Amino acid sequence: MHTYKGYLIDLDGTMYKGEEKIDAASRFVHSLVNNNLHYLFVTNNSSRTPKQVAEKLNQMDIPAKPEHVFTTSMATANYIEEKLGADVKVFMIGEEGLEEALQSKEFTFVDEDADVVVMGIDRNITYEKLAKACLSVRGGATFISTNGDVALPTERGLMPGNGSLTSVVEVSTGVKATYIGKPEAIIVNQALEVIGTSLEETVMVGDNYQTDILAGIRAKMDTIIVHTGVTLKEHLVKEKVQPTWSIDSLDDWKF
Amino acid sequence: MHTYKGYLIDLDGTMYKGEEKIDAASRFVHSLVNNNLHYLFVTNNSSRTPKQVAEKLNQMDIPAKPEHVFTTSMATANYIEEKLGADVKVFMIGEEGLEEALQSKEFTFVDEDADVVVMGIDRNITYEKLAKACLSVRGGATFISTNGDVALPTERGLMPGNGSLTSVVEVSTGVKATYIGKPEAIIVNQALEVIGTSLEETVMVGDNYQTDILAGIRAKMDTIIVHTGVTLKEHLVKEKVQPTWSIDSLDDWKF
Repeated sequence: MHTYKGYLIDLDGTMYKGEEKIDAASRFVHSLVNNNLHYLFVTNNSSRTPKQVAEKLNQMDIPAKPEHVFTTSMATANYIEEKLGADVKVFMIGEEGLEEALQSKEFTFVDEDADVVVMGIDRNITYEKLAKACLSVRGGATFISTNGDVALPTERGLMPGNGSLTSVVEVSTGVKATYIGKPEAIIVNQALEVIGTSLEETVMVGDNYQTDILAGIRAKMDTIIVHTGVTLKEHLVKEKVQPTWSIDSLDDWKF
Repeated sequence: MHTYKGYLIDLDGTMYKGEEKIDAASRFVHSLVNNNLHYLFVTNNSSRTPKQVAEKLNQMDIPAKPEHVFTTSMATANYIEEKLGADVKVFMIGEEGLEEALQSKEFTFVDEDADVVVMGIDRNITYEKLAKACLSVRGGATFISTNGDVALPTERGLMPGNGSLTSVVEVSTGVKATYIGKPEAIIVNQALEVIGTSLEETVMVGDNYQTDILAGIRAKMDTIIVHTGVTLKEHLVKEKVQPTWSIDSLDDWKF
């Protein structure tokens, strides 16, 4: 029996696989609810809004309200406000989730001479958008990327992730972006504030060692890896720091 | 007085600056013609066809026929044919110059399951094109990039170059592209075959140490740097291997 009071939970590979349901995930989150435990979905997906994420989870019989969702877009918007204030000019490349998160702040959106360039996954990327990002970064803008994921699993195969799009601006300008999403501590520290449980009371749950588990390890949290997604059991052998717990299915977790 | 019989000459920064004429360049190439010397323009610009390049040069009173132009797109098409044969399926990202060069061979153009993925600068880049490149490279396709230039000088500032676009696929797949353009030896060796003069009789002329001059040095050719473009005299100090000749203007070159 485990005594964690708060669960930070990854989505893709942990709660579902693309559009495919993971039945144990539904049972797992229902158990969290039944045991009056706190939980927050923490995702590197910058394209969706919390409402859209909650709806997808509900369709898979996973109890979730928008306030149970913390995206890297929200973490990015918070980070900019904290570090640079609300009175900044932002040039953004990204989709709806990032746009909504940035709009929730009082930033001014600009096309040139930005104080901050923010990049999130944008499947409508154009050369002109990349050019504008490069020009502002060369002009001295702070350069922020929602997450460094290099590949997105889809039914077609692994598609370019935001980390690979971000590299265009990094390679062209020679300026490295500050990354916000897992495995960075930035998103985890913010998520802990949102969930409201302490570091010691909270556990990070995910399928990907390089993002979810490393994020937990770096934040000095306990971690649960579930082998339903990216990281297979045999991959773990080569990692120096092991997850606190390793399970094949969320059904194996005893509350 | 110099006794080189063949001149491999860079374009942007050497023959002109964007749309701006360099008067000494016209006098220089007229002198080459008057002295019955061989010359070949060797460019990392994959977007234009030889005919388009020659027309631009003619408008600036620089004598040039399409056969005086050797682009990295032509070098790329030759390289694929030499290394992999004509019977290959190619997926291409690029503009007219690359398209024409590849079409001049008997390659089959495909959208998926390519044997070769070729990337050149494409100012109509889309996520879908990048996705297709990634999928074929992950499927084992040979990955080739016309050139590694990370930035393109324009009147708006430095725009993303092909090297930065190529990095999307490199970062996403973990596969490094083979680069064809300067400073790689591949394009220089092909250019020597086209110009027809020997290595010892030929000199490389350009404004950019990192591409033009390094290409010459690597090919063990003599080099002339002209300080009308990217590399200033003071930049040269830090380079271990110096160009054979360094001049402020092509007018300073004595035939």
